[in-house]
Amino acid sequence: MRTAYYISDGTAITSEVFGHALLSLFPIKFNHTTIPFVETEEEAHRVLDKISESFQDTGERPLVFYTIVNADVRKIISRSVGINYNFLDQFVAPVEKVLGVPSKPEKHRTHSIHEKTYDIRIEAVNYALANDDGSNLKNYDEADIILVGVSRSGKTPTSLYLALQYGIKAANYPFTEEDMGDMLKMPPPLRRFKNKLFGLTIQPERLSQIRSERRANSRYASLQQCRMELREVENLYRREKIPFLNSTRYSIEEISAKILAETGLQRKKY
Amino acid sequence: MRTAYYISDGTAITSEVFGHALLSLFPIKFNHTTIPFVETEEEAHRVLDKISESFQDTGERPLVFYTIVNADVRKIISRSVGINYNFLDQFVAPVEKVLGVPSKPEKHRTHSIHEKTYDIRIEAVNYALANDDGSNLKNYDEADIILVGVSRSGKTPTSLYLALQYGIKAANYPFTEEDMGDMLKMPPPLRRFKNKLFGLTIQPERLSQIRSERRANSRYASLQQCRMELREVENLYRREKIPFLNSTRYSIEEISAKILAETGLQRKKY
Repeated sequence: MRTAYYISDGTAITSEVFGHALLSLFPIKFNHTTIPFVETEEEAHRVLDKISESFQDTGERPLVFYTIVNADVRKIISRSVGINYNFLDQFVAPVEKVLGVPSKPEKHRTHSIHEKTYDIRIEAVNYALANDDGSNLKNYDEADIILVGVSRSGKTPTSLYLALQYGIKAANYPFTEEDMGDMLKMPPPLRRFKNKLFGLTIQPERLSQIRSERRANSRYASLQQCRMELREVENLYRREKIPFLNSTRYSIEEISAKILAETGLQRKKY
Repeated sequence: MRTAYYISDGTAITSEVFGHALLSLFPIKFNHTTIPFVETEEEAHRVLDKISESFQDTGERPLVFYTIVNADVRKIISRSVGINYNFLDQFVAPVEKVLGVPSKPEKHRTHSIHEKTYDIRIEAVNYALANDDGSNLKNYDEADIILVGVSRSGKTPTSLYLALQYGIKAANYPFTEEDMGDMLKMPPPLRRFKNKLFGLTIQPERLSQIRSERRANSRYASLQQCRMELREVENLYRREKIPFLNSTRYSIEEISAKILAETGLQRKKY
């Protein structure tokens, strides 16, 4: 199997995202290897050795995706026996021309604690944890968004992703059977915050499957129960005009991107 | 301010990461706008209108970073009045040549629920939540890693990031004053799992500041208390040869990348 290297003097997240997106266009499996924080010439030489070994072992030149601010380190990596993609670099000159400003690379400018919004993200993570699963109804004033839905419809992972990636304070509130009675009505603690609500729903079959992994053969996981709960919440969303989406076919990344696009909520981090 | 657009028929995460890394090389502020899920020609035309408006409003051509699988939609976006970077595309032909295989783009291949590792990530998030803050000592058999450290040294956000991004099951255990007594010894529930432990530490001044935001003027937040606790945990790490890092200057992304590099822990997701 051919190896793909993602190398940087920072986290190498940019190289990973770029290289992975590019290689996902090909119907081939790769052995992915990330080497972050290559900050000295000595380390760069060790990386070259690794790349050479992998070439010898597999007989195929590895693909090497790298972004490195330090010029000496970069020069060493660019001499690897792999096929080297200094993929940001070829865009720098054209963008300099467009902007009329020379580039001014600084180490660790992305994905680092030096991003101004770093503390906001940590605060948002703490907020999501403290306001998970309806645990803290009195803090909803602070929420940027309140995700609602039945148990296991994807609220918690989505709240955490919104917090970690975008610095958005997302609370989440589960509709339980007790809320439902004859007909699910808007729970009193949520009424004041109607404009912050965003609903999740999911296919009954998928919900039943997810719940069965937690409590097999329970009423909670039964298809009948899942159908009833989902019908009630979807009726509520429609009646109260709460925007909502069906999470069945979407990843957390997709759900989050759709929520931002649909609500116009501003992320606090790029 | 000049506008940068990140456009895709998927989440646009790849465009954001690439464009943001490129623009972070320039000492200029941008107005960042993401438009995900542009899946129809009609939507593409609406995007063109937006880009034109933004050009008219600011007098500067927006930068447009895009990756779009659908050829008709892509063609429309490529005609925008902005400066258009179909940044993956120019690497496709050279990589085809290297691999000897034609590319086979499919929609939503990255950042989507179709990635094989999706369920593993959700399970890892649930695991991190259930095993946060020493709450569930009996599940450590399942852990890929157990983060240890004093309260507020960064364990929880790091556990969640490892789970969400990499599908790694990270438990975390806080050393409390009760553990310390005369000298901090290895807490009994951790002994069996010594090879899974990874320690976090932090500068006392920074810890005191973080704790003060939670409980101002408390003993818990006092510099003296923070110094004592950190001295004890660092002594334990050294005595027991637990690998550790000082999180003071690092973001969650950097801490996570360093942990993976140092422990050799395999991520379950790329």
